[in-house]
Amino acid sequence: MTKATLDILGIGNAIVDVLARADDEFVMTRGLAKGGMALIDAEQAEALYGAMGPGVESSGGSVANSCAVAAGLGARVGYLGKVARDGLGDVFAHDIRAAGVHFPTAPLEGGAPTARCLILVTPDAQRTMSTFLGACVHFSAADVDLTEVARAQVVYLEGYLFSGAQDAFRAAAAAAHAAGRKVALSLSDGFCVDMNRDAFRHFVREHTDILFANEPEILSLYQTTDFAQAADQARSEVAIAALTRGAHGSVVVAGSDRYQIEAASTRVVDTTGAGDAYAAGFLAAHTRGLGLAEAGRWGSICAAEVISHFGARPQADLRALVGA
Amino acid sequence: MTKATLDILGIGNAIVDVLARADDEFVMTRGLAKGGMALIDAEQAEALYGAMGPGVESSGGSVANSCAVAAGLGARVGYLGKVARDGLGDVFAHDIRAAGVHFPTAPLEGGAPTARCLILVTPDAQRTMSTFLGACVHFSAADVDLTEVARAQVVYLEGYLFSGAQDAFRAAAAAAHAAGRKVALSLSDGFCVDMNRDAFRHFVREHTDILFANEPEILSLYQTTDFAQAADQARSEVAIAALTRGAHGSVVVAGSDRYQIEAASTRVVDTTGAGDAYAAGFLAAHTRGLGLAEAGRWGSICAAEVISHFGARPQADLRALVGA
Repeated sequence: MTKATLDILGIGNAIVDVLARADDEFVMTRGLAKGGMALIDAEQAEALYGAMGPGVESSGGSVANSCAVAAGLGARVGYLGKVARDGLGDVFAHDIRAAGVHFPTAPLEGGAPTARCLILVTPDAQRTMSTFLGACVHFSAADVDLTEVARAQVVYLEGYLFSGAQDAFRAAAAAAHAAGRKVALSLSDGFCVDMNRDAFRHFVREHTDILFANEPEILSLYQTTDFAQAADQARSEVAIAALTRGAHGSVVVAGSDRYQIEAASTRVVDTTGAGDAYAAGFLAAHTRGLGLAEAGRWGSICAAEVISHFGARPQADLRALVGA
Repeated sequence: MTKATLDILGIGNAIVDVLARADDEFVMTRGLAKGGMALIDAEQAEALYGAMGPGVESSGGSVANSCAVAAGLGARVGYLGKVARDGLGDVFAHDIRAAGVHFPTAPLEGGAPTARCLILVTPDAQRTMSTFLGACVHFSAADVDLTEVARAQVVYLEGYLFSGAQDAFRAAAAAAHAAGRKVALSLSDGFCVDMNRDAFRHFVREHTDILFANEPEILSLYQTTDFAQAADQARSEVAIAALTRGAHGSVVVAGSDRYQIEAASTRVVDTTGAGDAYAAGFLAAHTRGLGLAEAGRWGSICAAEVISHFGARPQADLRALVGA
């Protein structure tokens, strides 16, 4: 096994977020499921954008957010994801590179525009997301640079991208394992799991070493209402499962070990990116060789940082926060 | 004189801001004057953007910011300014309309792209701006909709746009005065004044009813180092001058009246847009028929709101803050 020259290689949907404040009534009257993520088409995106308030644009994408956070912690990070050659694509590419992340994927030429996620932040700091995937749906197995995969300690795959890119994910997992590396997966959202439960179950069992999920996602995966039971099942299928529970912190199970990690306290402004930041902190600590409890602590601290302000990318000096 | 159906019509550079954190060393090594605004060309913009950190995009433009703030205070507001028909132009148009501002100017077709202002925010919360004007330089007298001007109590003109649009400004001032309306002008920046002092002096003296300037700008206009003397000269030339002095509050002079207004206290995060918000609060109160001391108080409260967070557009309920 050659020495890894990257700590983490993320693969996910390359998206620019448009964040705006909204009240509960606006979210409700547009028929949006508060706190969730829904896919919308170009026409729906235009209608929703036209109706929503003044926005702030910043690069997003779940695993891309994680990559930016992990790079901020000093990890060596790469990212694969599809933007278009357009204004928002330039913004995405600039931001992820400026965060210190290696981003080699070629932009899509002359097709769909760069993906955008319209995020409504309600007064309770909850975020409701409507995503127009644009160029992201053109990410294919051909975009999985196997050399990049083979040189990273962990390849981190985004559940949101799973449905449309199962071949790409299997190719990435095979290349990672062939090189003696680890495969991490985020379930991303309950609706992703609902749409493809069998395929997710298979991918988790057969190809995943490190699983990230929040409580609704892991319950959905294993079709149970009992968190302890879901955690036990995850324990039997993957080497490490890091299960987040919002303000109740997280639980990490690995073989016979179980760690209960407290949420780091903060004033919550916008929960966008909490799970992404948790996974980033966890993977950055883990690939640095730190223990699982410490990895969970890094995850909690990073999550607390990104929910303390508007937007999913970190604003503070993360290394100082974790004490690295 | 017909009844005004708008309170404020702003005319200015329609710009999207790209804000990023930077340290003093970065600002210095790029040869930028900290706290100032410099114009850059397309090539310089690309080089600076490539070198700066991850950004957050939000609509900006000095008088456009003022218009968004004034609309947030309940004023009836219109805005004239030139974007291109491109992604950032869509962002600008969406945001100003979503703020409740009437924005009728047609976008530029097939020419320069929408203007952007690269804003570096240093740890001391100071902002250093580099602006690529793009489509803004194509704003001309033909874009000054005289019907819009005539129906607004106050037409508010941006000093940044003055150099390239003197004919447009004179046309707007003439139409406003012919309709019995007022003309307000912001000096915008010391360098604008330096470049065109004689033209500014003439426009202030002959066409301006309400003048907004910070201390360096008014000192530059009248070529003095004595603030009291500059304020006296402004008093002799315009009906109302509102002169801001950062943390030291502001001074409003009008005929034989003089008001000293305290700065509203806040934790300063990013000073971008402080002057814009002050002018907005002042004009919103003034066009509502409130007195000058109260107008200054509204200005101070609005300035405090926008410097308490990242970005130049307001995030709080401004009406509640001023008690309107």
